Amino acid sequence: MSKKAVVLLSGGLDSATTLYFAKAKGFQCYCLIFDYGQRHKKEIASAKKIAQRAGCAWQIIKLSLPWKGSSLLDKKLKIPEFSNSTNSINLSNSIPLTYVPARNIIFLSFALSCAEAIKASSIFIGANAIDYSGYPDCRPEFYRAFIRAVNLGTKAGVEGRGFSIFTPLIKMTKAGIIKLGTRLKVPYELTWSCYQGGRKPCGKCDSCNFRARGFQEAGYRDPLLRGVKYDRKN
Amino acid sequence: MSKKAVVLLSGGLDSATTLYFAKAKGFQCYCLIFDYGQRHKKEIASAKKIAQRAGCAWQIIKLSLPWKGSSLLDKKLKIPEFSNSTNSINLSNSIPLTYVPARNIIFLSFALSCAEAIKASSIFIGANAIDYSGYPDCRPEFYRAFIRAVNLGTKAGVEGRGFSIFTPLIKMTKAGIIKLGTRLKVPYELTWSCYQGGRKPCGKCDSCNFRARGFQEAGYRDPLLRGVKYDRKN
Repeated sequence: MSKKAVVLLSGGLDSATTLYFAKAKGFQCYCLIFDYGQRHKKEIASAKKIAQRAGCAWQIIKLSLPWKGSSLLDKKLKIPEFSNSTNSINLSNSIPLTYVPARNIIFLSFALSCAEAIKASSIFIGANAIDYSGYPDCRPEFYRAFIRAVNLGTKAGVEGRGFSIFTPLIKMTKAGIIKLGTRLKVPYELTWSCYQGGRKPCGKCDSCNFRARGFQEAGYRDPLLRGVKYDRKN
Repeated sequence: MSKKAVVLLSGGLDSATTLYFAKAKGFQCYCLIFDYGQRHKKEIASAKKIAQRAGCAWQIIKLSLPWKGSSLLDKKLKIPEFSNSTNSINLSNSIPLTYVPARNIIFLSFALSCAEAIKASSIFIGANAIDYSGYPDCRPEFYRAFIRAVNLGTKAGVEGRGFSIFTPLIKMTKAGIIKLGTRLKVPYELTWSCYQGGRKPCGKCDSCNFRARGFQEAGYRDPLLRGVKYDRKN
């Protein structure tokens, strides 16, 4: 098996931990960073810094999603504030406004194309089914079905050099991820989680709240937060 | 079921026929046209003209595939000339140099994202498993597996409004497609098939040869060809 891997790197805590996990497993990592019009553009700069710190190759993929409908793309929509119901796994109620249609499917297809071109057989994505905010493309059953399709629809798959998609964090809690990442020396001070693109994390969106709770439960202090007052509702 | 459909339109003969087929079935069609650095950029202009002639909405999606390795993207690689072995369905031998890694998977994920955003439940793609030049992402088993993944990984799928991907041409010969399209009044004079981006079709590449053979077998004259001498090897 090739020890080359394509790693989807968003600049957030999960994907940074995933990159360091793949490195620790001996993979030579090639990071893909997406500029898809997200309002939290700051995460792109974070992702670059993380890839550089990890000593890995990286590539920014610019793509347009001209259709709106997600508050992550459309500045007219308000980023929802955290509430306890966000934890619910009841998908019909809890798929949030920040959902970008088919985003992970798009990112994975680019990762596949890249992997096929550079002859990597592994793709790493920091999807998480526990603290995942209700995104359906973060569920294990989706990844199992997707990899089956992929190995039927690509040259490498058809020729017997199948792809694997690794989702090492998929069943971990945020606290578990932070404990793992701390052992792997992930530079969490470089990561960015907030959905708002402000100078400091807003402390109000789902992403800020999952992060804060994760650090609290792991028993660590978030190195990103110095002087930020958190407005926790839970 | 919503009668809105997203149609992947390349500007070639197959996707144009697919668009007219979807229209004939009563779908309100929204065409996606991809500018992905292909050397036959002329097909983008063709696709626009076809969408306009059909009276459909269209959107050009510009995307970068920075990795090379396909002669459709990399001008240093030569477009292979047609040979009889190109007909072989033996994938291990016949996946051609023009294969762009995971291209249809990327296009389909954008179609999905768009469909989810505009609340369409149908996607049409002119994939063809007979005269398909050996691309693995043109095979029926890939589409079956892909739609399963998609309905697990999207909000619409999870909420029960599943997507359907229609591949009406998948088991048709090129001659059959041309007969169907002629009945549906597809403006074949606007379509562009040649992999080279020249002023006139080169007459040498796979795509030119499949097209020429299709028109010949259907018993029609290709309206695009006026004064082009074909260098047929078969």
